[in-house]
Amino acid sequence: MPPVICIVGNSKAAKTRLMEALIKDLKNRGLSVGALKYHKHGEFEVDIEGKDTWKYARAGADTVAITSSVKFAVVKNINVPTDIDEICKKYFGDNDIVFADGFTLSDKPRIIVVEKKEDAASFERGRRVISVTDGNIEGRGVVIDNIMVFLNES
Amino acid sequence: MPPVICIVGNSKAAKTRLMEALIKDLKNRGLSVGALKYHKHGEFEVDIEGKDTWKYARAGADTVAITSSVKFAVVKNINVPTDIDEICKKYFGDNDIVFADGFTLSDKPRIIVVEKKEDAASFERGRRVISVTDGNIEGRGVVIDNIMVFLNES
Repeated sequence: MPPVICIVGNSKAAKTRLMEALIKDLKNRGLSVGALKYHKHGEFEVDIEGKDTWKYARAGADTVAITSSVKFAVVKNINVPTDIDEICKKYFGDNDIVFADGFTLSDKPRIIVVEKKEDAASFERGRRVISVTDGNIEGRGVVIDNIMVFLNES
Repeated sequence: MPPVICIVGNSKAAKTRLMEALIKDLKNRGLSVGALKYHKHGEFEVDIEGKDTWKYARAGADTVAITSSVKFAVVKNINVPTDIDEICKKYFGDNDIVFADGFTLSDKPRIIVVEKKEDAASFERGRRVISVTDGNIEGRGVVIDNIMVFLNES
């Protein structure tokens, strides 16, 4: 675990400004720097221009995280994981199922959404196909049934 | 690792709509559901109304993550970590130092930012004090020196 220094005090604006400056300084010295914020009020937004987390990222922080009583977020600009297994092991361990959008080349089972059934073959890639659907959400009962069968096997 | 199902196909809009609907359905069945998106274009924003990641969170996903070639982000609405050690171990392992904003009660070393030096005592709480400063970023050389001494000890 890296060493942690808390920035405390009675002026929120000065704390944020100092923290931005320290992040820049230590990045300039070649260190990998993280920024962590505790948000007192439950809901928050990440990545919004002007927010503290956005300022810390702009200052060069390699990892920025924010936590509150109801929500946690982390944004990483180093060691970005791209392997679906690595991501799911590390970040989705407490979920019963993960739906992945955009990992066409992965070896995972898949649901194929195509306007015409004859287009489906090019998305199979030799992987297990849970369902083929035209994406009509009213008709998704069969898709759900197939997912439940798959989950019961897993 | 939870089972993973990829949503693939040729209609982006239909895939996103179906994924939102499936997240809702499985949440209604009492499952903990994750959503993972691969973003082809390097930069992205999280938590912005209308973005796919925002839609998956709104549909009830307990964990939403997005990755690209340059950036990774995850937002958790379950098992939200609040312990600073737990967070730093799991999410900041590849950083040399972490600055924490808002963890006044933690047992970590601290930099105290106060307008008047006499206000500093109430922020010490018996913890190690790396520096006391008025947050004047031009005068932060001493703060940096103190941080470097601390890092060399760690």
